[in-house]
Amino acid sequence: MIPLVVVTHGGLAKELVHTVQIIVGTQPALFSVCLEEREGIEDLQRKLLAVLPAPGSDPDGALLLVDMFGGTPSNVSLALSQSRPLRVITGVNLPMLLEALTHRAESTLSALAELVSEKGRRSVFDANELLDRKGNREEGGCGR
Amino acid sequence: MIPLVVVTHGGLAKELVHTVQIIVGTQPALFSVCLEEREGIEDLQRKLLAVLPAPGSDPDGALLLVDMFGGTPSNVSLALSQSRPLRVITGVNLPMLLEALTHRAESTLSALAELVSEKGRRSVFDANELLDRKGNREEGGCGR
Repeated sequence: MIPLVVVTHGGLAKELVHTVQIIVGTQPALFSVCLEEREGIEDLQRKLLAVLPAPGSDPDGALLLVDMFGGTPSNVSLALSQSRPLRVITGVNLPMLLEALTHRAESTLSALAELVSEKGRRSVFDANELLDRKGNREEGGCGR
Repeated sequence: MIPLVVVTHGGLAKELVHTVQIIVGTQPALFSVCLEEREGIEDLQRKLLAVLPAPGSDPDGALLLVDMFGGTPSNVSLALSQSRPLRVITGVNLPMLLEALTHRAESTLSALAELVSEKGRRSVFDANELLDRKGNREEGGCGR
């Protein structure tokens, strides 16, 4: 089972992990790492290393879900991924975390990274537009 | 300026709003509404109505950013959007909230809904793949 680590500014990672566990129950190998207001790169790196699998362990990889590309959580995660089998996906949201939990037992790290990215992009849409289109179809519409 | 409301399960909304304010400072007309563990549809509806603009006020619309399509936060938001000028975008993440804050002063509600959805989808990607492609280009690559 691939370990999952949510890495963000502030308490966002902790709350994402807490919220997903309200929905699907407590999960093993699911971690949050938060960059608090007065912390820097070294603090975050230390906290991340404390939850990542030790090199040579099985599995030794992990999927890191970070809040946004270019921020310290993303930069520190990417730096660590140069020397360890980690994949870093940006823009974490709740559907991505649910997707990762659902498929991590039977996926390779690469396949999971692709599934989770794809799910993230598909999970973002204008719900009013979706309902309008659905309503038009159900009324029979006029072929538009 | 278009009001923004983040609506989620658990404390996720509160933490998204807190985190974005660490990054860009305190913002007016930015609200979080959280569905706590023992709360139901009516609790959430009441909390949402408490922060939404009163009908007939200026502006009377708002952009609602919800955690995922099909959950109670999304369902309650969509139900309210049938009788008020609200737009509901699913899959909220930090880049979407930053985008909404950046553009809400000069956008219409429809334009903002589109900008924020588009930003959400673009913000989710495999950062290792991006760096690999960039690395290949910078090395001159071999045209692949």
